[in-house]
Amino acid sequence: MAERPGEFELIERYFRPLASDPGAFGLTDDVAVYVPPPGEDLVLKADQIVAGVHFFAGDPPSAIASKGLRVNLSDLASKGATPVGYLLSMALPDDWNEDWLRDFSAGLAADQALFGVSLFGGDTTRAAGGLTVSIAAFGRVPAGSVIRRAGAAPGDVVFVSGTIGDSALGLRIRLGTLDSMPAGKAADHLLDRYLLPQPRLALAPVLLRFATSSLDVSDGLVGDFAHICRASGVGGEIDADAVPLSAGARALVDSDKSALASVLAGGDDYEILSTVPEADAERFAAEAAEAGVPVTRIGRVVEGKAPPVVLGVNGQPLSLDAASHVHF
Amino acid sequence: MAERPGEFELIERYFRPLASDPGAFGLTDDVAVYVPPPGEDLVLKADQIVAGVHFFAGDPPSAIASKGLRVNLSDLASKGATPVGYLLSMALPDDWNEDWLRDFSAGLAADQALFGVSLFGGDTTRAAGGLTVSIAAFGRVPAGSVIRRAGAAPGDVVFVSGTIGDSALGLRIRLGTLDSMPAGKAADHLLDRYLLPQPRLALAPVLLRFATSSLDVSDGLVGDFAHICRASGVGGEIDADAVPLSAGARALVDSDKSALASVLAGGDDYEILSTVPEADAERFAAEAAEAGVPVTRIGRVVEGKAPPVVLGVNGQPLSLDAASHVHF
Repeated sequence: MAERPGEFELIERYFRPLASDPGAFGLTDDVAVYVPPPGEDLVLKADQIVAGVHFFAGDPPSAIASKGLRVNLSDLASKGATPVGYLLSMALPDDWNEDWLRDFSAGLAADQALFGVSLFGGDTTRAAGGLTVSIAAFGRVPAGSVIRRAGAAPGDVVFVSGTIGDSALGLRIRLGTLDSMPAGKAADHLLDRYLLPQPRLALAPVLLRFATSSLDVSDGLVGDFAHICRASGVGGEIDADAVPLSAGARALVDSDKSALASVLAGGDDYEILSTVPEADAERFAAEAAEAGVPVTRIGRVVEGKAPPVVLGVNGQPLSLDAASHVHF
Repeated sequence: MAERPGEFELIERYFRPLASDPGAFGLTDDVAVYVPPPGEDLVLKADQIVAGVHFFAGDPPSAIASKGLRVNLSDLASKGATPVGYLLSMALPDDWNEDWLRDFSAGLAADQALFGVSLFGGDTTRAAGGLTVSIAAFGRVPAGSVIRRAGAAPGDVVFVSGTIGDSALGLRIRLGTLDSMPAGKAADHLLDRYLLPQPRLALAPVLLRFATSSLDVSDGLVGDFAHICRASGVGGEIDADAVPLSAGARALVDSDKSALASVLAGGDDYEILSTVPEADAERFAAEAAEAGVPVTRIGRVVEGKAPPVVLGVNGQPLSLDAASHVHF
């Protein structure tokens, strides 16, 4: 086996080029500095992904890097924040090699360019097992305007961005737990959505203008809507038929009875669920589309303290096997 | 085995009480918010500790928690920053139980009270092996005043806080790699210093007034002084005899020839190494003592680009087996 670089060389070759913000000091100091613009609050988020839990150990390193970063950026965007940077702590298993690390850092570099963020620092250590990628990301938002879970009011319209269920179905394709396995482009789309969430950064400013509550769908559409309802002290309804599906997901839902539960409760969508007053709903949808992130009206906020319900085509409540995807 | 709580219950019971800052929203939202005071910069640091690398898997959970937090606070303090809060990402191996987690969170709670910080968020997932504790900490510093590695000038005096080598010798006691094994109080002190670093927060304001460069000693005294010299474009000398030792470390250095190398290059001291202009040296030492963190003059900054040297009692350079402790 070729000799591998030590920690300092590794930082120099693969991480220093990612420290594009001057406050990161090219990773040559012990800390980084961020100068918050006057009148803005800092928004903080930490999320880690673990081999065998959130990705497969053999997945492309650039995709693992992207997923680790994007799940954090998705959270920031869903609360109205503009991402600024991140700290990366990696626990690397013993079998890493330079090709792997080169591809991993290339994935981060591409996403940094795409999303306008910089690496600000971090830590690389030996793992006590499989790969763990811990990211703490931060962004900024006009003072006092972060969008909370609490804030939804009866009468508000429930919107979701993009399409729902692709990632959960992509995972089921990989695990082989679907009755009929799709193939070709439709399957590729679902697999891609599992590995490469799309943080909806362009929606953040639109959310800031209109949303009464919002979050990104990571625990499952129904479970995350329940989070909003609980925090807001309201009830809610989702029309199952209105939930936007990709062509691949649509085909699976039509052919496999278990697919709908994966769509509604599967998680890892990283789409943005938000509530908007009825009076603003049309403008919100129009401005979201203009921003390049179409949103779909899927339900409504109602009075009450009961958990939200999902209504089938006949207007009757559906029962789901699992209300929320649990990562732990 | 008793049933263990799921992720949400676990957060509710053991982490939510730690989210004392209102910006943490009691961990009931997706992100946290920090409102930076006007005229202050944000200082960021992420450091993780891994079972079998930075601690032993069977160490007391409260001590593991403290070490994970303190190694980060130590970095902030060494750069002149006042710690504010942290994000915690934990990868928990399958054999955790509630007693373990209760003790872990109690360790964090005690340190939060001691150091005036709040948990702002985080993530708990299954580990792909042993326990990994990733912390991203942040603090604040008057705008533009963070203390860098670069800044040391020829003629500056080199100071270090506390005593050096205790942690490295404590680790060697645990590993059984010393010729003569100490016992009793002296050994307890060294073991304690390995597990429970003391972040020197009280020294931060004194450093801000006097230090031309500083960092916390984590890679080893000589290796970390080399970091300062390289960043500052200077050379340096450390007088081995002047390096402050605890009674336990002194006894080991006198009885075991290999102990001095552990002291000078062993790492994990989490004491603060700084350089101060000669004209300020006396006042710096006096104010540090007044702040409760005595510092000792151990060397000087000189002209030149060569790595710093350690001088023995005869004024001749010593050679060390390892210049720097490597965590990876």
